[in-house]
Amino acid sequence: MAEARVAVQPIRRADRARQVADVLRHQIHAGAYAGGLPGETELADEFVVSRNIIREALSALKAEGLISRGPRTGTRVAQHKHDHGLDLLLGLQETFDGHGQVRNEVRVATVVCAPPSIARRLLLDAGAPLVFIERLRYLGDVPLSLDQTYLPADIGDAVLAHPLEDSDLFPLIEQISGQRLGDATLALEAIPADPHSAAILQLADGAALLMLERLTSFEDGRPVDLEYIRMRGDRVTMRGSLTRSNP
Amino acid sequence: MAEARVAVQPIRRADRARQVADVLRHQIHAGAYAGGLPGETELADEFVVSRNIIREALSALKAEGLISRGPRTGTRVAQHKHDHGLDLLLGLQETFDGHGQVRNEVRVATVVCAPPSIARRLLLDAGAPLVFIERLRYLGDVPLSLDQTYLPADIGDAVLAHPLEDSDLFPLIEQISGQRLGDATLALEAIPADPHSAAILQLADGAALLMLERLTSFEDGRPVDLEYIRMRGDRVTMRGSLTRSNP
Repeated sequence: MAEARVAVQPIRRADRARQVADVLRHQIHAGAYAGGLPGETELADEFVVSRNIIREALSALKAEGLISRGPRTGTRVAQHKHDHGLDLLLGLQETFDGHGQVRNEVRVATVVCAPPSIARRLLLDAGAPLVFIERLRYLGDVPLSLDQTYLPADIGDAVLAHPLEDSDLFPLIEQISGQRLGDATLALEAIPADPHSAAILQLADGAALLMLERLTSFEDGRPVDLEYIRMRGDRVTMRGSLTRSNP
Repeated sequence: MAEARVAVQPIRRADRARQVADVLRHQIHAGAYAGGLPGETELADEFVVSRNIIREALSALKAEGLISRGPRTGTRVAQHKHDHGLDLLLGLQETFDGHGQVRNEVRVATVVCAPPSIARRLLLDAGAPLVFIERLRYLGDVPLSLDQTYLPADIGDAVLAHPLEDSDLFPLIEQISGQRLGDATLALEAIPADPHSAAILQLADGAALLMLERLTSFEDGRPVDLEYIRMRGDRVTMRGSLTRSNP
């Protein structure tokens, strides 16, 4: 550390608690504590911090809904977050294949006139008929996400003729069209839940949502599926990998 | 729509407002309304909805901090979100090259003993010395993210000897080590801001944060940089693309 040009500063207690919480959060997601978390003393030894700091970290994780704490039960993982891949374009049921059944509650399925901005993204004329589908998606008993989908009418009409309760749209679109899906562009944001979305997703107003906007095209480049997906922040982690430079 | 097997349901007013808000949010991010948003009547015509629905959509966007509304100024974009790429591994300054200067407030820069779980991810022994750096990163006058970084001591000590106020860690690590960075694995989540992070990032308690956990390795596969990055949900959008199947 000789010649350090930045002042080496002490770590504040709240910062230490956040550091500990970050590490524990990762371990919980990695499935390290399926049988419950170690006691405060044990954790304090592992992290070389005071029990107060451990307590502060655990209450942050509790506020996130990740753990539950009780005098008899100890500290347990309240909810496992589900991993959603950022490396491959997959539907939700395809993603969770083997980890549980995705159930879709179809809230809206109708034809709308395309507003100019939606039409532009799907390379249609403004006012063209679009199929709009809103699905509340469950994995187990708790909602995972609220998905709004816009499809061009030629594909969308045929999609509506299929049951949507327990299948993804991607394979259905491929089956109907006889074409393979190619690339998707996506945007990910953390937004507060508006009161209406919060109620549907069984969350408090303003709870953190992971919002995914995704425009998927056929292999020939024609855009076919514009989706706005609101995922419960406490239930989904998006995972992927990045490379430093183009190969 | 013949033979539709799902009941075609009407769209509720709150759902319409959310649809409109989704589209407007996208347009705002795309820079469509640099001179201000159209009036309510004009928007109602564009979306073929009532002015009440437009008003509801605009108040959701206002609650997100995305627009401001005033009787004289009309509806204006309050804050432009910044795009952060999901396709290439870049530091923040590299990402915003040409769009503004990133300034780093170095809050902590110190040596810590690696907790077992951090050590494991960096392939070090538990208790090994690690350099821990916490930076509050600004683009303009408003904080963008709070970044916590763990580096092995051999690299970290040399990093601390450099000014960190206005440079990214990635090029610095490459310069110090003489090695290129290769891949990174990442996890993205939407989490509520704990009171401490909220205060530092100038947000309300519980505001939505986009949390990025990123483990970056050298080209030879050795992990070298573990980061926990809390981005303000109202300031950053992650953008990328996905392909349906492995090429």
